[in-house]
Amino acid sequence: MTFITNQKYVTFPSLLTSVKIIATLKELIIMSKSALHQIFNPSSIAVVGVSNDISKMGTMHYLNIITSGYRGKVYIIHHREKEVLGKPAYKSPLDLPEAPDLAIFVIPSKNLLPVFEEFGKIGTKHAIIITAGFRETGEEGAKLEKQLFETAKKYGIRFVGPNCMGVVNSHLPLNVTVLPMFDYNGKLGFISQSGTYVTQVLPYLHKKGIKFSKAISLGNSTDICINDALEYLGDDSDTGAIAIYIEAIRDIENFLKIARKVTRKKPVLAQYVGGSKGGAKSGASHTGAMAGPDNFYDGIFRQTGIIRAYSVEELYYKGWTLATQPIPAGNRVGIVSNSGGPATAMADTLTREGMEVPEFSEELQNKIKPLIPPHGSSKNPIDITFAIEIELMGKTLPKLVAESGEVDAMVIHGIMDTGFMKSVYNLIKDNITISYEEFEKIFFADVEFIKTIPEKYKIPVTVSSFMDHEDHAISELMKGDIPVLDSPEKAAWGILTLKQYREVREKKLPDFPEKIPAPPMLAEKIINSIEEFDEYHAKQLLKAYGIPVPEEYLAKSSLEAIEYAEKIGFPVVLKGSHPSLQHKTEAGMVFLNVKTPAEVREIFRKIKENNPVYDILAAPMVKYEREFMAGMIRKEGFPPCMMFGLGGIYTEVFKDNVTGCAPLTVEDAKDMVESIKSKKLLGAFRGYPPVDIEKMAEVLVQLSYLSLNFPEIKEIDLNPIVTVEGKPVVLDALVVK
Amino acid sequence: MTFITNQKYVTFPSLLTSVKIIATLKELIIMSKSALHQIFNPSSIAVVGVSNDISKMGTMHYLNIITSGYRGKVYIIHHREKEVLGKPAYKSPLDLPEAPDLAIFVIPSKNLLPVFEEFGKIGTKHAIIITAGFRETGEEGAKLEKQLFETAKKYGIRFVGPNCMGVVNSHLPLNVTVLPMFDYNGKLGFISQSGTYVTQVLPYLHKKGIKFSKAISLGNSTDICINDALEYLGDDSDTGAIAIYIEAIRDIENFLKIARKVTRKKPVLAQYVGGSKGGAKSGASHTGAMAGPDNFYDGIFRQTGIIRAYSVEELYYKGWTLATQPIPAGNRVGIVSNSGGPATAMADTLTREGMEVPEFSEELQNKIKPLIPPHGSSKNPIDITFAIEIELMGKTLPKLVAESGEVDAMVIHGIMDTGFMKSVYNLIKDNITISYEEFEKIFFADVEFIKTIPEKYKIPVTVSSFMDHEDHAISELMKGDIPVLDSPEKAAWGILTLKQYREVREKKLPDFPEKIPAPPMLAEKIINSIEEFDEYHAKQLLKAYGIPVPEEYLAKSSLEAIEYAEKIGFPVVLKGSHPSLQHKTEAGMVFLNVKTPAEVREIFRKIKENNPVYDILAAPMVKYEREFMAGMIRKEGFPPCMMFGLGGIYTEVFKDNVTGCAPLTVEDAKDMVESIKSKKLLGAFRGYPPVDIEKMAEVLVQLSYLSLNFPEIKEIDLNPIVTVEGKPVVLDALVVK
Repeated sequence: MTFITNQKYVTFPSLLTSVKIIATLKELIIMSKSALHQIFNPSSIAVVGVSNDISKMGTMHYLNIITSGYRGKVYIIHHREKEVLGKPAYKSPLDLPEAPDLAIFVIPSKNLLPVFEEFGKIGTKHAIIITAGFRETGEEGAKLEKQLFETAKKYGIRFVGPNCMGVVNSHLPLNVTVLPMFDYNGKLGFISQSGTYVTQVLPYLHKKGIKFSKAISLGNSTDICINDALEYLGDDSDTGAIAIYIEAIRDIENFLKIARKVTRKKPVLAQYVGGSKGGAKSGASHTGAMAGPDNFYDGIFRQTGIIRAYSVEELYYKGWTLATQPIPAGNRVGIVSNSGGPATAMADTLTREGMEVPEFSEELQNKIKPLIPPHGSSKNPIDITFAIEIELMGKTLPKLVAESGEVDAMVIHGIMDTGFMKSVYNLIKDNITISYEEFEKIFFADVEFIKTIPEKYKIPVTVSSFMDHEDHAISELMKGDIPVLDSPEKAAWGILTLKQYREVREKKLPDFPEKIPAPPMLAEKIINSIEEFDEYHAKQLLKAYGIPVPEEYLAKSSLEAIEYAEKIGFPVVLKGSHPSLQHKTEAGMVFLNVKTPAEVREIFRKIKENNPVYDILAAPMVKYEREFMAGMIRKEGFPPCMMFGLGGIYTEVFKDNVTGCAPLTVEDAKDMVESIKSKKLLGAFRGYPPVDIEKMAEVLVQLSYLSLNFPEIKEIDLNPIVTVEGKPVVLDALVVK
Repeated sequence: MTFITNQKYVTFPSLLTSVKIIATLKELIIMSKSALHQIFNPSSIAVVGVSNDISKMGTMHYLNIITSGYRGKVYIIHHREKEVLGKPAYKSPLDLPEAPDLAIFVIPSKNLLPVFEEFGKIGTKHAIIITAGFRETGEEGAKLEKQLFETAKKYGIRFVGPNCMGVVNSHLPLNVTVLPMFDYNGKLGFISQSGTYVTQVLPYLHKKGIKFSKAISLGNSTDICINDALEYLGDDSDTGAIAIYIEAIRDIENFLKIARKVTRKKPVLAQYVGGSKGGAKSGASHTGAMAGPDNFYDGIFRQTGIIRAYSVEELYYKGWTLATQPIPAGNRVGIVSNSGGPATAMADTLTREGMEVPEFSEELQNKIKPLIPPHGSSKNPIDITFAIEIELMGKTLPKLVAESGEVDAMVIHGIMDTGFMKSVYNLIKDNITISYEEFEKIFFADVEFIKTIPEKYKIPVTVSSFMDHEDHAISELMKGDIPVLDSPEKAAWGILTLKQYREVREKKLPDFPEKIPAPPMLAEKIINSIEEFDEYHAKQLLKAYGIPVPEEYLAKSSLEAIEYAEKIGFPVVLKGSHPSLQHKTEAGMVFLNVKTPAEVREIFRKIKENNPVYDILAAPMVKYEREFMAGMIRKEGFPPCMMFGLGGIYTEVFKDNVTGCAPLTVEDAKDMVESIKSKKLLGAFRGYPPVDIEKMAEVLVQLSYLSLNFPEIKEIDLNPIVTVEGKPVVLDALVVK
């Protein structure tokens, strides 16, 4: 793909190698968007693979579509039977009375193509291909997948899969999975490279009160991919937040652009499992996708404002919290509990990560005290101690706290009614005369007020409970889209995730740039003239991009060396210099604090004696404050990966660095600089002024342009980048062409 | 408390201030051990606080004791009623036909003492005091608590609480809580400073298949405390692992000794919530306990081999895995799954933390391949892809893997039968004639083989499932003590926790020392003669303990300074020295590379000019390799807290340090040194030899003796401790008396 700058064409190199689709990006996005709309909202459906054998997946998909309440026409295609499950079956798509909006395939891969093509012929434009046995099985499968893609292109069919488990739209409703859908009108959008996470989990999620708005299992993503789904759900008004399970992203460039736009509209949470040895290997067998290093994805997530999750459970419960709760305006959390342990654990979890649990005002405490036992606490957490007065937990106290203006978020532990009363009933049933049904109704808790808090007070609420959906009050809260988590810490983590998203929004990252400046003339000249870079020429290249380097000269004779040293001013540094010489210090090729022409002469002689091909680099002694590093590495399928971190001798010890994809905006680069663990170094430090973050960021931005301008550069390593009066200077540089 | 060494009495200072009980430690331990045995296994019980009001906690406690199957005699004490819940009630303990083994109190605190005393009079020796309203409510309550303790002492009564929720013994059985007990003969011992975590959670745990062996809610721990419970459960043969919820430990010295012994016998897992601002404040309101800094507890856990947990859910599911599964002999994990996503997520989680998911041998794969679909994977993870052939998942594949000798642990995802079949039945019920009960039986999975794996093959197994106890196969696995976790990552984390415990065992830490060497004569002399320490005397004190310091001299005249410099050999370092002078570099009081007597004279003049009271410290120039730091800080209630970490200018930037309680053994100290994040520095590094860990550890050991020998030393800070040819040398030292 190319972009026009004011001067000439500039190419994003790795994009060219990874994306080989003829249509332009814009066309593709528009196409797939409307395609996904139709796939989630088809006006009619045909299923291929339904039979009278109820143990077959296709049959289950069909039956779930029907029983989950899909209201459009559903046709059955069967090559032999005239009637399937008591409904008429059509031998071929060609026999159908109309071209269905969506075709679903659950037949063996070897039988797929002819039927697929027949749908093409009648004009069906959308498909979900559940069928496995393609790229993930090896070469033969990959060939078949290519044929499938080409057939689809030929007929203009857009499809999800193959090797996927289907989609869910709880609003239409539509349930193309093997398990029944229990919940409607949910708010969590889910994109998954594993079918299990959108299908087999439906009963699990139902019990947790978590409801998908739309969910999609991508499978091999031959046509419709993660980017299409992300952009579609980003615009979907039913979807409050998006959670993604990722084994590998194929088109990172577009992912970056789309994700950055979407996270400004709604929260996006992602789990990436391909960055470890075990995850990468297993993922390759699963969807045939090539994963990337874990730290690349850390960078991609930070750069796009995606919040990273480390388990599918986090995707669900944090995603659900993000989808249903408002962003807290500040960090003050009010805790209401009927147990000191959970309250303390929540306070601990919240304050570890920067939230506060401030003591309530005397005024508020004076309102609380008369309501709770004397051995309880009104401070915050409010601890009413173990009590069964559910109105207190379900209404009175949350109302006092919500209306106080003293909190920005609320967590509640201990609400329960029938879950507890059932056990009480079992204890006393021999002594009373009413039935359990009558008994439990007496204790039904009124939790309606809690449900109104997020909307009315703009305060997010999470509830911690060891009771579950079988408890009436808990089930009511779930129905009202209040996240109910089964441990105090999870309730706290839910709130912390909302804070994380607020921080994403506060970053105000601009769009991912569509074009970058053309290379400076001088840089092109250097690149074209130098085959292998030594330190001097590497720095000259950096200098052409405005990256600050010391005033340096390359001497070929002893006389030249002295002349340059005098020009710089004694004392100077002398270094042997040659493209083959990479670790100068270890090779004894760095001479610090050279004070006289005589010393220069002697060192020149010493260097040349054993290494006649070496030149001598003369540089000033730089008195510096801190050591950082920056660099670029490439990996197929990724834009140039830029790095920034702690430099000098501790580079390897702490591996304290962060990554980001080129091109970097100034905002990206500043964010990278400020994201290192040793960020304390950036501030005023041991009497040194703070690091000039803008200037440091500019180094990274220019380095990213350099990396994009010249795809022939394989690797860049600037280590150390020191600071002098807070400003960056590159003291050593390695450029590998 | 005092210990006799071969020379004289040595005192553990902080112990003296924190433990004020007359009985010796040994007596105490023996007493509380047998006391806890009786409390968990009482031959008869009296409950005070039962009434005909079933909403009262005491009534619930009583009814739960009865309905959970306790087989001994249970008496009811009621000050007014003659009959309670249809049973005869006694007005006072004095009216009872026998002295019950255990008395349980659930009456208001103001009414407690007289009845408590009456139990003392009739000879009852054990009590559980549920009643709250003591120390946690303030001064009045603290007074009452003291009276309670004194009354108990008077009559030799040992008690749990007050302000607790009771105990559970699933083996007797005995359930002194407000909720019914569903499970018997469990394996997880649970010690909690929150009642909720052993009582309100019972239905929650039941659904998760997690069963307590014994559980205890400690409340205010006025008498029986965490240490008693830990030691008791450490010896309890029904308990496979112990999980502890901690807000604060009062007697750390004994905790260290006991915990270190227990972790050699069985795994101990602990959550500590008192180390953050929110946790500390909330905990103080909850049980009135004073918490300590989080990093102290990190040190205490590492030093005792306790595995730290960060949520109560971790306490439960990791504790359950530790309690039921064998320790894997190696790191090879076999994964069996019917879904690629969970399999990949498990492989990712496992390999991130040092386990391996090795590809199976060709031999094994050839056995697997014919059993699974062509688009599945036989490599490891085995992915049979979505399938309902439950025998494959429940027996055939696990058997092949277990018998292969190619794995040390196994995780399985996807077992289910009725949970899934129920949804299938709902889809097809109109088309078939058999009832659900008949239908589901056809699909009952046989998971008996999996249950045998831990015992027969010494291979731990965890199962990941989105189905729960309502699924027949999952429920069978739960009954067989196979941990079933509701996410793939948790199944993996279970295995990783077992690996963590293996590493604890491999450390072979000796007992926590009962006595330490007496201080060297010279050290005592220095301490007695110096009021405020300057650097020189601080180092002399260290030197007395054999801690390596440079050859240094304190000069009071310019002539002396020159003499010393010549003795050391030029070039030297000169420093201003005075107890009031702490930040020498910042004050411009460090002069490096002093080369001549003239320079010495000049510097001496310069220092004295503005600071006539300063002496001049002459020291050799030390060419060093790395910078570490060590130190000691004190906090009331804790033994001296020793620190080791990265030194020099990065001390504050990375805060890379670990703690440990004095006295340190050599093993403790080595473990501390090797536990810093920057441990890469310890190995051969930039051409320097590796750090002599033994010698570095010896510095810490001696520093811990010094700290114990002289409680009057408030703080020690050795920064930097550099290495020269790998060996430690203390370059700067601060001792505050």
